[in-house]
Amino acid sequence: MKQKGILIVVSGFAGTGKSTVVKMLAEKYSEQYALSISMTTREPRKYETHGVEYFFSTKEEFERTIAEDGFIEHACYIGNYYGTPRKYVEEQLEAGKDVLLEIEIQGALQVKEKLPDTMLVFVMPPSAEILFNRLKGRGTETDDVIRKRMLRAVEESQGIEQYDYILVNDDLDVCVEGLHQMIQSEKLRASRNIPFIENMRKELVDLKKGEV
Amino acid sequence: MKQKGILIVVSGFAGTGKSTVVKMLAEKYSEQYALSISMTTREPRKYETHGVEYFFSTKEEFERTIAEDGFIEHACYIGNYYGTPRKYVEEQLEAGKDVLLEIEIQGALQVKEKLPDTMLVFVMPPSAEILFNRLKGRGTETDDVIRKRMLRAVEESQGIEQYDYILVNDDLDVCVEGLHQMIQSEKLRASRNIPFIENMRKELVDLKKGEV
Repeated sequence: MKQKGILIVVSGFAGTGKSTVVKMLAEKYSEQYALSISMTTREPRKYETHGVEYFFSTKEEFERTIAEDGFIEHACYIGNYYGTPRKYVEEQLEAGKDVLLEIEIQGALQVKEKLPDTMLVFVMPPSAEILFNRLKGRGTETDDVIRKRMLRAVEESQGIEQYDYILVNDDLDVCVEGLHQMIQSEKLRASRNIPFIENMRKELVDLKKGEV
Repeated sequence: MKQKGILIVVSGFAGTGKSTVVKMLAEKYSEQYALSISMTTREPRKYETHGVEYFFSTKEEFERTIAEDGFIEHACYIGNYYGTPRKYVEEQLEAGKDVLLEIEIQGALQVKEKLPDTMLVFVMPPSAEILFNRLKGRGTETDDVIRKRMLRAVEESQGIEQYDYILVNDDLDVCVEGLHQMIQSEKLRASRNIPFIENMRKELVDLKKGEV
């Protein structure tokens, strides 16, 4: 049953730990998953490294890549571009790897429209209050950014029903394993296994002809 | 996130071990699952007990229950009736139990049409040849019955794409746990969690109003 990999988009409000979940999953089952790294024009935070969290680029370089159709999705969020370089994703899927993409809702819906087989997962906090306390308590952002994120969370919450699955991040290890199991199950959807089913049917018909 | 239970229909060719899988799952996680017992007019096999594998009934009793709309599905297979009594299933779902139903494809598609939220799982053998050897090797059936089953397997294989998931039964314990994980993931589909999502959205809006 060697299959092409599937593309999994993970989104969620800022502060739900979605980046950590995705990174831990890719590390825990590194033979199965490939982690897509986004390109962005925003400034790196002090703990971020080019080529690890993001590829940091200039506005000019980003817009040239758009013009060359080099992204499977791109979006603008609080004045900065974010995009998913196409080439790496396609190569990994062809090689049978499941590709994890952590992107915002705008991009997620673009991907789903272009590639309807994409699995969309929205990471939820256990409650709205826990999310708000995390956003305020992280202390790395100005009040203005927090305010924008709160507004953004309300906006993004409008789109959750367009995702395939929700995943509550209460305990990190449980959440990572839950996402892994969710992907394993999704890969067993009948619609993703048509060649296997057709082959079984053909073999049954052949055997019946021979035996009866 | 206390939810109504979901209905899981498990089908598969005779000889794939689907009865064993379902029974083991219901025993392993008895607090989560309720096992629906079908009613049938066929003769009990020597190892079968009334109220365990099936409720064995007369043709007259069965037809009276049909007339009273007492089945969520019923079908005729090799000259005998099989049906799922409605009352038990509905009570268990309301109580939050996930209900396991092991039935043939005819019945499965009837249930899906009446109750579109039903999850349909088709148990597959690792290969067609393994299935045929099992059918021939079990030794409890006449050649005529085996021939009918082979024909039936070919017929049923036409409908596999209408199921939601396939589940390959290679190793029994792996298969049981795989089915359990599949059900856990299915319960996290966004479409099954609309009240939770709506509540989260409402709380976010309320918090934003209070904070910003």
